Amino acid sequence: MRLRGRKGIRENIESQTDLVILNPQQYKGKWHEVFGNDNPIYAELGMGKGRFISEHSRLNPNINYIGIDMYDELIRRSSEKAREAHTLEDGTCDVSNIRLVIWNIEKIEEIFAPDELQRVYLNFSDPWPKNKHARRRLTHAGFLHKYTDILNEWGEIHFKTDSQSLFEFSLNSFADMGLRMRNISLNLHEDGPNPEHIMTEYEMKFSSRGVNIHRCEVVIGEKVLEAHLAELKGRK
Amino acid sequence: MRLRGRKGIRENIESQTDLVILNPQQYKGKWHEVFGNDNPIYAELGMGKGRFISEHSRLNPNINYIGIDMYDELIRRSSEKAREAHTLEDGTCDVSNIRLVIWNIEKIEEIFAPDELQRVYLNFSDPWPKNKHARRRLTHAGFLHKYTDILNEWGEIHFKTDSQSLFEFSLNSFADMGLRMRNISLNLHEDGPNPEHIMTEYEMKFSSRGVNIHRCEVVIGEKVLEAHLAELKGRK
Ligand SMILES: C[S@@+](CC[C@H](N)C(=O)[O-])C[C@H]1O[C@@H](n2cnc3c(N)ncnc32)[C@H](O)[C@@H]1O
Ligand SMILES: C[S@@+](CC[C@H](N)C(=O)[O-])C[C@H]1O[C@@H](n2cnc3c(N)ncnc32)[C@H](O)[C@@H]1O
Repeated sequence: MRLRGRKGIRENIESQTDLVILNPQQYKGKWHEVFGNDNPIYAELGMGKGRFISEHSRLNPNINYIGIDMYDELIRRSSEKAREAHTLEDGTCDVSNIRLVIWNIEKIEEIFAPDELQRVYLNFSDPWPKNKHARRRLTHAGFLHKYTDILNEWGEIHFKTDSQSLFEFSLNSFADMGLRMRNISLNLHEDGPNPEHIMTEYEMKFSSRGVNIHRCEVVIGEKVLEAHLAELKGRK
Repeated sequence: MRLRGRKGIRENIESQTDLVILNPQQYKGKWHEVFGNDNPIYAELGMGKGRFISEHSRLNPNINYIGIDMYDELIRRSSEKAREAHTLEDGTCDVSNIRLVIWNIEKIEEIFAPDELQRVYLNFSDPWPKNKHARRRLTHAGFLHKYTDILNEWGEIHFKTDSQSLFEFSLNSFADMGLRMRNISLNLHEDGPNPEHIMTEYEMKFSSRGVNIHRCEVVIGEKVLEAHLAELKGRK
């Protein structure tokens, strides 16, 4: 008999010990051991149904990916996407460079040690449009302080959203913290879908409706800044 | 007989020696003498028909304003606007805190000495949409270097535009130069005309058509930065 409902979903994700991590606190400071290598670790905060991280991890085998969300059902759907993406023509499936983690991002410092991540992706984070909820926005200063702690010297934040008001808020939040931005885009798919950027589920939905997608990168680590400055110098 | 045509316009502006300056190079480093006081000097680059600078200078008698454009006819129209704005009920008119200057902004360093200005306004600057014309955009790095030289320790750049692509270009240009932004807005008049911000002619036209107005401030002087940081600290 096929299991249904919440209990079925829980049992499903519990059984996927190679891919899903239900008690991530125990790996704080030990994520490189989890992956069994020293490759950089990129995390997507609020991955939803997992398209973005599944595609990214398939295309970049030398990077480790951690997808975080707080709902069992989204972890389950993401696990399906991830396995699908990593399945080769011969039927084999290697998901060794991706983990799906159930966790509340508000307590992200409890699962990552300082310098443990190299990149944070924020894709179509909930906009929390009311001012009184501003602290819940994943680009609020309270969150940014946590990200800067857990990101390493090559650390970056990559942020995309359909929400003009969240983007505006976020640009000011980055700027007010003195963080350096680059590659700011107010209409990412202006000339049709931009193949450089893997689309998320929300992104496909919104851009097909003609909504502008906003994007920017935030330079956190000093090494990224040095490299960026050298690149800008070269461009002149 | 009323003079018409280009010659008439030239004679008109030539006669307004209290307001219009046709050979501004001679005042480089001497603008405080022109105004006869030590009040801060704000310049609008590309003022067009002069509504913005006329209203600003009327509302802020303790600031000196310099409006720059390169066309005689726009200087003439701005001079009318300025006199109108500064005319009191009793019929007297005092335009002592405003000057209209005919000049090409590409050579702005020839009319202002280092630290001579406290603020630069860029309102609805020509977008120069083609990539090959990027250097002509008034927020291109080439111009920004000049502005940072002539702005003083309290210096700021205030930038408004209807053009999404120029705004995107400009944000990146500011960011790439390591300039600090604040009060970034992607839809300035979202909740109806924002009374805090005096509208320019272009702004009235575009926002009445429902086009979003973008705005941001760039912190140039170290004193502004200190004050801004103190303010942010207080907000927490
Ligand atoms: C609007 S959806 C975007 C999903 C996906 N990134 C996309 O672009 O299609 C936001 C996601 O963030 C997750 N999320 C929001 N706040 C969270 C939090 N505090 N901790 C963990 N996940 C969170 C939600 O469960 C949801 O899946
Ligand atoms: C699009 S209009 C905007 C006018 C006005 N600021 C407004 O918002 O209504 C741009 C103005 O900049 C002036 N301008 C453009 N390039 C200039 C340059 N290199 N030197 C002086 N003025 C310039 C043009 O003559 C024009 O009046």
